Amino acid sequence: MTDADCMAAAIGLARRGLGETAPNPSVGCVIVNAGRVVGRGRTATGGRPHAETQALAMAGAAARGATVYVTLEPCAHHGRTPPCAQALIDAGVARVVVAMRDPDPRVNGAGLAMLRAAGIEVTEGVGMPAALAVNAGFVSLIEHGRPLVTLKLATSLDGRIATRTGDSQWITDDASRRTAHTLRGSHDAVMIGVGTALADDPELTCRIDGFRAAPMIRIVVDSHLRLPLNSRLARGADAHPLWIIHRDGADPARHDAFAALGARLFAVPAAEIGVEPQAALRALGAAGITRLLVEGGGTLAASLLRADLVDQIAWFTAPLVIGGDGIAAIAGFGVAELAAAKRLTMLSANASGADRLATYRRQD
Amino acid sequence: MTDADCMAAAIGLARRGLGETAPNPSVGCVIVNAGRVVGRGRTATGGRPHAETQALAMAGAAARGATVYVTLEPCAHHGRTPPCAQALIDAGVARVVVAMRDPDPRVNGAGLAMLRAAGIEVTEGVGMPAALAVNAGFVSLIEHGRPLVTLKLATSLDGRIATRTGDSQWITDDASRRTAHTLRGSHDAVMIGVGTALADDPELTCRIDGFRAAPMIRIVVDSHLRLPLNSRLARGADAHPLWIIHRDGADPARHDAFAALGARLFAVPAAEIGVEPQAALRALGAAGITRLLVEGGGTLAASLLRADLVDQIAWFTAPLVIGGDGIAAIAGFGVAELAAAKRLTMLSANASGADRLATYRRQD
Repeated sequence: MTDADCMAAAIGLARRGLGETAPNPSVGCVIVNAGRVVGRGRTATGGRPHAETQALAMAGAAARGATVYVTLEPCAHHGRTPPCAQALIDAGVARVVVAMRDPDPRVNGAGLAMLRAAGIEVTEGVGMPAALAVNAGFVSLIEHGRPLVTLKLATSLDGRIATRTGDSQWITDDASRRTAHTLRGSHDAVMIGVGTALADDPELTCRIDGFRAAPMIRIVVDSHLRLPLNSRLARGADAHPLWIIHRDGADPARHDAFAALGARLFAVPAAEIGVEPQAALRALGAAGITRLLVEGGGTLAASLLRADLVDQIAWFTAPLVIGGDGIAAIAGFGVAELAAAKRLTMLSANASGADRLATYRRQD
Repeated sequence: MTDADCMAAAIGLARRGLGETAPNPSVGCVIVNAGRVVGRGRTATGGRPHAETQALAMAGAAARGATVYVTLEPCAHHGRTPPCAQALIDAGVARVVVAMRDPDPRVNGAGLAMLRAAGIEVTEGVGMPAALAVNAGFVSLIEHGRPLVTLKLATSLDGRIATRTGDSQWITDDASRRTAHTLRGSHDAVMIGVGTALADDPELTCRIDGFRAAPMIRIVVDSHLRLPLNSRLARGADAHPLWIIHRDGADPARHDAFAALGARLFAVPAAEIGVEPQAALRALGAAGITRLLVEGGGTLAASLLRADLVDQIAWFTAPLVIGGDGIAAIAGFGVAELAAAKRLTMLSANASGADRLATYRRQD
């Protein structure tokens, strides 16, 4: 087993926790002694205990003299728990391999310095590209104060989400809709605009048995609090968190009615259409959301694209054509010259049942 | 070399002639004697001589006792030349392997019957799927009286061909535009609507040196003969054929002006928008077009889709998003319920420079 192999295993563990650890990063840890894996762990659902703590507990005495692979620099600060760097020192490990430093200013090299000061050999940067992808939500929150935003689209080949009469169920097939649920599962929260809420009355839960332990936070951008109190989203607010982002000064009576249902409400400055998207995302960041999946509709997608707040797109396309009078997945967002169009970099393109799923990231 | 290998070589030859042999099919022929290729041929540019004639000429005396691989049943009728089946008999070949029968009612098994009656061993159906694809234009003309229609699109990910201000150059990259020229090269004719002609003033030629020997027929659907007489299409009509499809009763003076430039004009019944698409394609079929590449714009594409006349789509997508106020590649064509959307089967999906090229065929 090379360092790269062991780190890949740790990253696999970390990936499984995505969506369940916010505002903490989902970290993976593998401990190897004399060529044998003696400990494994990932950040637990809810964010505690940390990956290292669990892997060390599993390894027990076998941690002494071992090599520890961890997808993010061990923490150096006392939070709700003692620092992981100290726990590794106390366990007597010989070597620590980390994929990347923790950008949190309370850590940012301090964890590695603690380890080195204790005589532990430290290797940095193994598996960094994959770790950057897994930690992207946490890094976004630290660096930009907002979650990583992934826009999920499910369209015809010509980019439509419904016919001109609004018929939309279903454009993509079973396999794609299942995959879309696993996508929800790896995000802290799912967000839609109120237009989509009114049109589809969705639940926005992750309905794949056993796939997700944490509750799925459902967020509606609803400037004027138009969401019906008897919608599925509102009625399910006791079982699954419902957050509503509204304009400053929305109707206080409706505000209180949603609050009484258990919803959490966020007042955000108004924009020309809807709310100020940057402010909305900062409010979600302050509430601890690191990975946000935006599922439409076209107005919300356009508002985020216009403000350059879309980091990734997961785009399902079904092999059919609806025509130009259908409803566009992405509304106009002010592109007059082609040079202003939003350019993306493709990350992957694969079959998804009879459909295709392509993923893109913003072009820096 | 198996039968399948030899037929694949013959199909490769046939493919190279696509776009240059109409109204004849592009046929490939390989002659093998004692494990050695002694003759090769494809239908010559313009349709004559036939593939078998050329391969037999190359083989000479070595054709005696040989096996002949041919992508379409040899002709049995006296046309401009004596029947190929007779030439094969006269050459003393031992065996003929054909990929598929010629659906032309003047042949349709008669060529094979002639060969068998002369004591030649005949094998049918080797490489049929590939042969069906290569012969699809010819088969469409025989069976439906119209060419095979391939719609070529070059769009943003959200299906736009221009921004709201009409900025369209260029959405796709160099590599895709070169591939689009080779696509022209394998078709008998290229067709656009007059809106695209007015917006882009294109040449519609196949501008890849050495790629194409036959002239490229350029066709404009122009109900009211609005194409400017000084457009690139009109000015180039002496060098490259220009065909114009107009409504019955269009301005006779403009008709005569285009005819004087060397253009060929087709009067077709009017439809609600533009001309009756079925009638337009039948007129092109009667004029010998077997493979038609339709390059836009959105109204023409919609009109053909509405009439269910699109057999294939070659869809280039560039990794960018323009938004819902951009110009749609395909206009509305009357889809109210999702069940009425045009369903396609994907044939291929590949990188094309920074873009993607996916091909589809109609779902039967």
